Amino acid sequence: MFVTFLTDFGLEDDFVGTCHGVMKRIAPEIEIIDITHGIQPQGVLQGALVLANTVPYLPEGVHLAVVDPGVGSERRALALRSGDGRLFVGPDNGLLIPAAKKLGGIEAAHEVTNRAYSIEPVSATFHGRDIFAPAAAHLASGVAIEELGPALDPGSLAQLDVPKPDVGDRRIRACCLYVDRFGNMQLNLTREHLERLGIEPGNQVELELASERYYALAARTFADARGGEIILYEDAYENIALAISGGSAAQTFNVSAGAEIRIRLDP
Amino acid sequence: MFVTFLTDFGLEDDFVGTCHGVMKRIAPEIEIIDITHGIQPQGVLQGALVLANTVPYLPEGVHLAVVDPGVGSERRALALRSGDGRLFVGPDNGLLIPAAKKLGGIEAAHEVTNRAYSIEPVSATFHGRDIFAPAAAHLASGVAIEELGPALDPGSLAQLDVPKPDVGDRRIRACCLYVDRFGNMQLNLTREHLERLGIEPGNQVELELASERYYALAARTFADARGGEIILYEDAYENIALAISGGSAAQTFNVSAGAEIRIRLDP
Amino acid sequence: MFVTFLTDFGLEDDFVGTCHGVMKRIAPEIEIIDITHGIQPQGVLQGALVLANTVPYLPEGVHLAVVDPGVGSERRALALRSGDGRLFVGPDNGLLIPAAKKLGGIEAAHEVTNRAYSIEPVSATFHGRDIFAPAAAHLASGVAIEELGPALDPGSLAQLDVPKPDVGDRRIRACCLYVDRFGNMQLNLTREHLERLGIEPGNQVELELASERYYALAARTFADARGGEIILYEDAYENIALAISGGSAAQTFNVSAGAEIRIRLDP
Repeated sequence: MFVTFLTDFGLEDDFVGTCHGVMKRIAPEIEIIDITHGIQPQGVLQGALVLANTVPYLPEGVHLAVVDPGVGSERRALALRSGDGRLFVGPDNGLLIPAAKKLGGIEAAHEVTNRAYSIEPVSATFHGRDIFAPAAAHLASGVAIEELGPALDPGSLAQLDVPKPDVGDRRIRACCLYVDRFGNMQLNLTREHLERLGIEPGNQVELELASERYYALAARTFADARGGEIILYEDAYENIALAISGGSAAQTFNVSAGAEIRIRLDP
Repeated sequence: MFVTFLTDFGLEDDFVGTCHGVMKRIAPEIEIIDITHGIQPQGVLQGALVLANTVPYLPEGVHLAVVDPGVGSERRALALRSGDGRLFVGPDNGLLIPAAKKLGGIEAAHEVTNRAYSIEPVSATFHGRDIFAPAAAHLASGVAIEELGPALDPGSLAQLDVPKPDVGDRRIRACCLYVDRFGNMQLNLTREHLERLGIEPGNQVELELASERYYALAARTFADARGGEIILYEDAYENIALAISGGSAAQTFNVSAGAEIRIRLDP
Repeated sequence: MFVTFLTDFGLEDDFVGTCHGVMKRIAPEIEIIDITHGIQPQGVLQGALVLANTVPYLPEGVHLAVVDPGVGSERRALALRSGDGRLFVGPDNGLLIPAAKKLGGIEAAHEVTNRAYSIEPVSATFHGRDIFAPAAAHLASGVAIEELGPALDPGSLAQLDVPKPDVGDRRIRACCLYVDRFGNMQLNLTREHLERLGIEPGNQVELELASERYYALAARTFADARGGEIILYEDAYENIALAISGGSAAQTFNVSAGAEIRIRLDP
């Protein structure tokens, strides 16, 4: 059985390795796939989007995710089952919801309260190690989700505010959801939004970022543009993104996640 | 059989992957758990503390650790067995000692000298690949520790100087042992030190760092404080640490490992 | 069966984890060894050199490598078999060639075109996920290389320009191929180049870097030098490198990959 694992723990410290150790002590036979541990510290929205992007490419099993600024507060620990039978474990702060919705919706939700499936004593600051990783390992080794704690109404779970674009007739006001290592900027847009303005691969597009104006090419891939040219394209997860052929868009524009971008078809 | 693996190699280069390859060529059946490879370059003390913190959460097996500023010098290569039967492999610079002491003390120590269990020719600068990883893999696949080389007197092993706090009646002079990715600063203190000054969760505390004065809350967890408030708390490994709720303490104070911190109960 | 995996994807994003997921969905029984994902973005030469350095230390199987600035262009996707029977998968930009040459040369080359072994639809920007990882997983699970697509003439494959040193009677003009996490600088030299100038361990050597003059010790290992001393040594992969005992050469010299270095025996 596979457990996939996504966090904002980074790899400089022992947090990820310790959670691996905890899971392997509980269930030596499981196999762990690290999706990434490079989510920005406390970046719940980024974590949720990355999990939803990747989950169709991952083997079935338990999807463990921990981005948890509310550790030690009253926020609940969750175990979910999605419509297609996959299991999710993580904090009740919206992190798991977009992925679970993508896989058939939330069929069952349980609060993880049964201390028989935690590490005792549970620390006040590292529930990844003491609650979430153990719950995932127990689920992966065959414990039923109902064993972990009482059922919750899926409607009662915390939801995320994914910022929505403002799409007019001639102009879109979008924002950058996150920036990857290559400096490519994922926007809160899909191909449909661009099409509403009549923007298609091959078009010239006008951008406004941080009060500066730029011209970009709507393109299918980096190779369609000259080196240094700005491109607006549908990325491999079907999100619209902004890149610079052979360079870093985020560095060039000097922006990061949250930045506002205005887009219009070059008149 | 599990091999856990901790180094200061980082993940930018091939060093960790090459050691994985070397171990898998020797013993394809073993399973490797990476604790972390983010120990500061040549940070023997940090490596030793992280290994000792995490080892109770790791499955039994061989604990391989390499932070080795003395590679190529006369420092010895070690294999140890702790009181609870776990095995340790690494350089004789104190790195393994706190972890082994935590697990029942050093029951046997051997110098790794038998070239039948190394990669030949042994390079002058990468004993992780040529001596330590092969020794760990051979131990994990059943080779007896005595096979690796002659027994050593545990009393002859290099020890680390863990800086001790200066605990007065009203004031503690402590230091920062290391900083994690969230900017939380682990101090060389335990709960007992704070209790000697009468400091308990809920108290206001006065700090002095880099000649600046701050006020902190002694707290159980981040969620007990308002955003931006400084907290002094017992971390998940039972060390006292300094954090900023929703922020980075190390960045705010502009300090790093080694920094001195004075603490007293707010009068 | 082992798949080893090297890229410039970094670990901040999901790219590596997603490729792991894709491979495990195709072939749950394979074992993946991450060599490194820290190759500089689009650093094809660095990737090729690291792969060639490490491949003798890795178990036999499929060596998957993706550093792919030309994704989405007409560059071909390759599967190679080397003289010793190992398999390689990656883009046709020279990345795989030095490693394959080291292991007996290229015995067979095929273009990966058979969409039965890709993820459909193939995206325009993430062939690592959609073409290369699936091809590697299928090869590792027993699919014959001929199944992936038509045979190619090995002579038609893209080659890399590895910068050559200029070796005179009394002076070498070399360059830095890459810098590792410890700041050690790998040069485009082997021991034979130094010997042609009569440079041997123990000699004093004059360096010129960025118009500055330095004195270094030709040495066997870091421990042969005093702290702070510059050393010129043969590294663990039998390349000549430049280091500072107890420090970072690249930081001290303020140089990076590509920097020119002039070396002569101190007269």
